[in-house]
Amino acid sequence: MEMEALITERQNAEFDVRSLKVVFWGGEQNFEMVSRMAAIAATDPVFERVDQVATSRTDLFKSGLRKAARVRQHVLDLSLSDREAYILRTFVDERSYADLHWNMFIPALEGQATEEQQEYWLPLARGMKIIGCYAQTELGHGSNVRGLETTATFDPTKDEFILESPTITSIKWWPGGLGKVATHALVQARLIIGKEDYGIHAFIVQLRYLENHKTLPGVIVGDIGTKYGNNTVDNGFLCFQSVHIPRMNMLMRISEVTKQGIYKSHPVPRGILYGAMVTAREIIISEASISLSRAVTIAVRYSAVRRQFGGSKHVPEEQVLNYVTQQKRLFPLLAAVYAFQFTAQWMRWLYEDIQERLKKNDFSTLAEVHSCTAGLKALTTSVAAAGIEECRKLCGGHGYLCSSGLPDLYTNYLPSCTYEGENIILYREVGRILLKTFADSQKGIDSSGTMAYISSLNNSNVNSCAAVEGKEFFDERGLLHAFEIRSLWLIQQCADKVSKTADFQAGLDEYAVEIVEMAQAHCQLITISKFHDKLQENIPGSGVKEQLVTLYYLYALSLMVEHVGDFLSARYLTVMQANLVQKQIIVLYKKIRMNAVALVDAFNHTDHFLGSTLGSYDGDAYNHLYKKAWKNNPLNDTLIPEGYEEYLRPILSGQHGGQLALSKLVNCHLYFLREFSS
Amino acid sequence: MEMEALITERQNAEFDVRSLKVVFWGGEQNFEMVSRMAAIAATDPVFERVDQVATSRTDLFKSGLRKAARVRQHVLDLSLSDREAYILRTFVDERSYADLHWNMFIPALEGQATEEQQEYWLPLARGMKIIGCYAQTELGHGSNVRGLETTATFDPTKDEFILESPTITSIKWWPGGLGKVATHALVQARLIIGKEDYGIHAFIVQLRYLENHKTLPGVIVGDIGTKYGNNTVDNGFLCFQSVHIPRMNMLMRISEVTKQGIYKSHPVPRGILYGAMVTAREIIISEASISLSRAVTIAVRYSAVRRQFGGSKHVPEEQVLNYVTQQKRLFPLLAAVYAFQFTAQWMRWLYEDIQERLKKNDFSTLAEVHSCTAGLKALTTSVAAAGIEECRKLCGGHGYLCSSGLPDLYTNYLPSCTYEGENIILYREVGRILLKTFADSQKGIDSSGTMAYISSLNNSNVNSCAAVEGKEFFDERGLLHAFEIRSLWLIQQCADKVSKTADFQAGLDEYAVEIVEMAQAHCQLITISKFHDKLQENIPGSGVKEQLVTLYYLYALSLMVEHVGDFLSARYLTVMQANLVQKQIIVLYKKIRMNAVALVDAFNHTDHFLGSTLGSYDGDAYNHLYKKAWKNNPLNDTLIPEGYEEYLRPILSGQHGGQLALSKLVNCHLYFLREFSS
Repeated sequence: MEMEALITERQNAEFDVRSLKVVFWGGEQNFEMVSRMAAIAATDPVFERVDQVATSRTDLFKSGLRKAARVRQHVLDLSLSDREAYILRTFVDERSYADLHWNMFIPALEGQATEEQQEYWLPLARGMKIIGCYAQTELGHGSNVRGLETTATFDPTKDEFILESPTITSIKWWPGGLGKVATHALVQARLIIGKEDYGIHAFIVQLRYLENHKTLPGVIVGDIGTKYGNNTVDNGFLCFQSVHIPRMNMLMRISEVTKQGIYKSHPVPRGILYGAMVTAREIIISEASISLSRAVTIAVRYSAVRRQFGGSKHVPEEQVLNYVTQQKRLFPLLAAVYAFQFTAQWMRWLYEDIQERLKKNDFSTLAEVHSCTAGLKALTTSVAAAGIEECRKLCGGHGYLCSSGLPDLYTNYLPSCTYEGENIILYREVGRILLKTFADSQKGIDSSGTMAYISSLNNSNVNSCAAVEGKEFFDERGLLHAFEIRSLWLIQQCADKVSKTADFQAGLDEYAVEIVEMAQAHCQLITISKFHDKLQENIPGSGVKEQLVTLYYLYALSLMVEHVGDFLSARYLTVMQANLVQKQIIVLYKKIRMNAVALVDAFNHTDHFLGSTLGSYDGDAYNHLYKKAWKNNPLNDTLIPEGYEEYLRPILSGQHGGQLALSKLVNCHLYFLREFSS
Repeated sequence: MEMEALITERQNAEFDVRSLKVVFWGGEQNFEMVSRMAAIAATDPVFERVDQVATSRTDLFKSGLRKAARVRQHVLDLSLSDREAYILRTFVDERSYADLHWNMFIPALEGQATEEQQEYWLPLARGMKIIGCYAQTELGHGSNVRGLETTATFDPTKDEFILESPTITSIKWWPGGLGKVATHALVQARLIIGKEDYGIHAFIVQLRYLENHKTLPGVIVGDIGTKYGNNTVDNGFLCFQSVHIPRMNMLMRISEVTKQGIYKSHPVPRGILYGAMVTAREIIISEASISLSRAVTIAVRYSAVRRQFGGSKHVPEEQVLNYVTQQKRLFPLLAAVYAFQFTAQWMRWLYEDIQERLKKNDFSTLAEVHSCTAGLKALTTSVAAAGIEECRKLCGGHGYLCSSGLPDLYTNYLPSCTYEGENIILYREVGRILLKTFADSQKGIDSSGTMAYISSLNNSNVNSCAAVEGKEFFDERGLLHAFEIRSLWLIQQCADKVSKTADFQAGLDEYAVEIVEMAQAHCQLITISKFHDKLQENIPGSGVKEQLVTLYYLYALSLMVEHVGDFLSARYLTVMQANLVQKQIIVLYKKIRMNAVALVDAFNHTDHFLGSTLGSYDGDAYNHLYKKAWKNNPLNDTLIPEGYEEYLRPILSGQHGGQLALSKLVNCHLYFLREFSS
C-alpha cells in the first residue's frame, strides 16, 4: 500500500517533471553535469553513508579521509573540473579537510597572494602536495576579526615573522582540517613591526612536516572535540609558541613588509575580491536551497505514504499530506526551495555583471551588491536550517530516527548559519546600508539594484491594497509591490527612530532588533523579486510555468501572513484583507497538494543523497525502516546485550544494593552542605 | 577576566538569590530534597557524563545500564522515596530502561490492573524482579491508538490470548527499554473474541526468560537503531508470531474477558485515571521548565563572559549580554522558565482539587482540566525545545560543540514534543473543547476554571486598550485581561468560520491551522494567569517579588509583540500602542540585564547537571573548552592520526590517482543513463 501511494501521486501530477528538473538546475548542461556527479556518488560503494551516532569518532574521521581520497581519485581519473569536483563532494555529502582546502584555503591564496606567491603556492595546493586550512577564528574571537590576538612580529635580523599566541583566548579554534590533517595554515594574525600594530594580515604557516606529518617546533595543534554534526571533520585548535616563518610567507597582495621592515599598502584589485565574495555567497545560497530540498523531499514523500486518523474498518486512514496543518508548515518550505534556487541563479548573473562593471571602473553597485549578498546569505541559511528541523518534526516520531536522514542533515547543515558571517551580524550590516541608502534617497540620490525601490516608490503617497476579493491577491506584480511597500515602511520607521538618537551608531545599537527585522524584510523582498523575474523568462515544459506561478504565490502570501503585523501597521492591508489572504492560501495548498510529490521529484535527488528510509523514491518507508534497524546495529548482533551480567542480572535476581561505601555517602552530604546551604 | 565577569554580575544583583531558589523549587522542603539529589548526582563518579557523539552505541547503552544500576543502589541504600528516586534520575540525566519502567510501566499497572492483578505484578515490578516497558506505538501507527493492528485473540480452549503481528506496520516500534532489557511488556493490542473486534486493550506479555534473558518463543525483538538523542536507551521493536499468554494477563480493571469468552465493561474509577494524567502532565511541564532553565543558564552565563565588538585598545570588547539583539531572544526564555515552573506548581494544586471534587462525585471540571493540561503540555514542550536550540544559537559557534552541553540537551529533550501526545494533535483537541465551551456560553452556560473568561468577558462590548503611555502596560491585571480578550477574539473568529462549514467536524479539519493558533493563545493565557496568581502570593526575600514582577511583564509583553497581529486585528491595540509596547520592552531588558546572572543562579543547577564548558558556575569558559578538547578525545591521543598512511600520505606524496577500475566507471555511467535520462 505504501509503495502504491507514490505511484498514484506521480500519475496525478499535472506537469512534466523532467522539464522542471532542467529549470531547477539552471539549464540542460548543468543538469547533465550534476546528474553525472550524483550518479558517481550514488554508485561507488566507498561513498556509502556512515551512521554518525553509531560510529566512533576515530572511525568517523577515518571515513572522511577515505572518502576524500576516493573523490581525489575520481577527480584525477575523470579529469573533473573544479566545479565538477565541488559538485561531487556535495553529493558525497561527508565533510572533510578537502572542503576547507578547496573552498577556503585555495580561494584565499588566489585573493591575497601576489602573483609571485601564487606561482609558488598554488601548484603545490592544487596538486595537493600540501593541504591547507584557513585559520582565522580564535577561542575568544569569532565574528569580530579586529579582535584577533595572535601576533606575527617582524624580526628584521632574520627576515622572519615570529608567530605567538599570547593568551588562552588567542588560541586558533574551529578551522576545519586543522586538527589532524593540514600541513599548512593560512593564519590571520596581528602584524607587529617594532612597537607598531598594523592590524590583521594573512600568513602561510607550515604546521606539519611533509615527510612524516609530525608537527613543527612551537606548533601545538589538535582536534577541538565532538560537535553537533560534521564529526568526520577535524576542526582544530592551534597555539603558537614562538614559531618562525620567512618574511615572504606573509601574503602581500594587499600590503607588504619590506626586508627593512617598511610597511606598504598596495592598490587593491577589487574586482577579484568582490567577484570571489559573490561566488562564495552564491554557493552558500544554492546550498541552502539544496539542503532544504532534501528535507522537503523526505517530508513530502513520507507524508504521502504515512496515514493517520480518519478512515474506518474498510477505508484506510488519511494520508498525512492531506491535513491542512501539515500543508501549512510544509508547502511554504517547498516554495522556498524554488525561491532560493532562482535567487542563486540570479547571483550567477550578478557575478558577470560585477566583472563587467569593474572592467569599466564602475564601482557604483559594489556596496549594494555586498549588502544584498550578505543579507541573502543570512536569510537563506537561517530559513534552510529551521526548515530542515521543521521537516523532521513533520515526519512525526520516525523523524527522530537517524535512519530518516533528517537529524544528520540538520546538524551537518547548521554551521552555515555561522560561517562566512554570523547571520544577525550580517543583517545588522545590511540594515546600516539600507538606512544610508534611504537617507541618500531623501536627498534625491537614486538607489539602484535590489534597493532601487527605496527611491522609486512614491514615499509621500504609499499605496494601500485595493483587493476586495481573495483571488485578487493572485497578482504577480502586485505581490512584489506589496513587499516593496512593507520593506520601505519598515525602513522609514527605523530611520525615524534612529534619527531621534544621539548619533547614527548609537541608534543602530539601540534599535538593533528593529533593524534586523527591517533587513530581513528587505531580503525576503529580494527573493520574491528574483522568483518574479524567473517567471518572466521563457519556461518550457508542459504545465511547468503554472506550477512555478503557484509556488510563487504561496511563497509570497505565506510570508505576508507570517508578517501580517507589518502589513497591517503599514496600513497596506486592512484586517478584512488579511483574512482574505489567509483564506486564499488554502486554494494554493490544494493546488500544490496535487503535485507535491512530483514537485520534489523535480529536485532529482538520488536515494543515496537523501540517505533516508522515510524519503526513498519507492515510498517503501516501513520496510526500509525495519531493515535498517537490523543493519549495522551492534545492539542487535547478540541476543543478550553487553552489560547484562554486570548491570542487569544482579538487579533482576535481587542481588543488588547495600553495597554503596559509607564514605561515598558522607562525601555526598558534605558536598551538599557546602554547595547548597550557604 | 572571564571569571571576574560573573563575580561582578553577582555583586550587582538586586535580590536575595537563595530566597528565589526556594520560590522556584516550590518551598523549602522540596528545595532541600532536590538539592540533596542533585548533590548525589554531582558527586558520585559513576554519574560522570559521557560524550554522546564520541561514544559508540554499545558503550552508550552500557553506560545507561551502569547508571541505572547505580541509581538503584542509591535508592536502596538511602531508602529513597519514589519521588526522590525520580528526581535523582532527573539529575543523573541519562535516560535508560529504568525511566520507562518507573514512569510508564508501573503507573500503567496501577491504573489498569485489577487489585488482584496489582497484588501479583506490583511487588515484582517495584522490586525490579521484572523490568517492564510500555508497548503501544507501532511502525505504522503513532498518535492514533485506534489504528493499532496488533491482535490478542482469545482462545477459550486453552484460556489464553494469542498475540500476533499481522503486518509490517503492526510491529511494535519505539518503546524504550524494549529493545534489549525489558523482561515484560504492557502491550496495547486489539482484543478479538470469536470474530468480534473489541478494540484496544492492555496485556502483560513476558518477552524474556528471567533466568537467562533469552527471548521467549515467537517473540522477535530488537533495538530500532540510532536516534537524534537518548542513545543510551534501547528503544525497541517487537513482532509477535503466535505468542500465547494466560487470560489473566489482560489488565481487567476497565473491562474483563471471562473464561467463557464473555466481554464485560466495568465502571471506570475515573479519579485514579484523571489524577494520574494530571500528575504525568505536571511532571512534563516541570521538566520543560527545568530543561529550558539549563539552556538559559548556559546562554546567560556565557553571554556575560563572552565579549564581541565595540571596545578599543584599552577597553575590552562589549559583553554579548549587553546587546539588545541578544536580550530580545534570551530574556523572554528566561521569563518563560519561571512562567512554566509556576504553572507546574499550580498543577500540583489542581491535582488535589480534582481528587477532592471526585470524592464528592463532582465531574464538572474534568473536560476543562483534561484540555488545559493537554494544551499546556503542547505549549511548554514546544517552547522549551525551540528555546534550547535558540540558546545554543545565542552561544555563537561554540554552542555547536558538544562540550557546550547544548546539542545533547536539545536532542535528548526533543521527544517530549511527541510522547504523551503529539503537540499539534493536542492543540486540535484543546481547540475542539474551546469551541464547544464557547457555544455553551452563547447558550448561557457558564464556563469554568481556565476557561471561565469565555463566559465572563462581556462579549458584546470587547474592551480596547486605553494606554497612551508605554508605562501603562506595566499593569499586572491589565495584561492578563489583554490576553483574555485576544484569546476570546480568536475563539470567536474560529467559531464563526466553523459555523459556516457543512458540519462541526468538517469545520475543525478545514480550519485546523486557525484552531491550533487559537488553542495556543488560550494556553499562553493560562501560563500568564498562573504567573499572575503567583505574584498575588506572599513572596518573601529581599527584592524577589520585584524580579518576578519584571519577569511577568516581560513574559506577557514579549508574547504580545510576537502576536501583535492578533491584538491589532482584535482592535485591542492600535498601531501606535503596538509601537509603545515595543519601546516599553526595552525598559524591561535593562532591568533584567542587571540581574540576569543571579536569576539563572536561582535555578540552583550544579555544574554536573549543566554539563557545559560554557555555562559553568565559575565562568571560566575558555579554560574549560580547551581542557575538554584534550580530555576523552581519541583524535588527540596520537600525533599522527589513524588513516594517515592509507589515505593521506599517498595524496601528499603524489602517489595517488589513476587506480580507479574502469569497470566502476562504466557502471557509473550506465547508472546515470538509467536513472537520469528517462
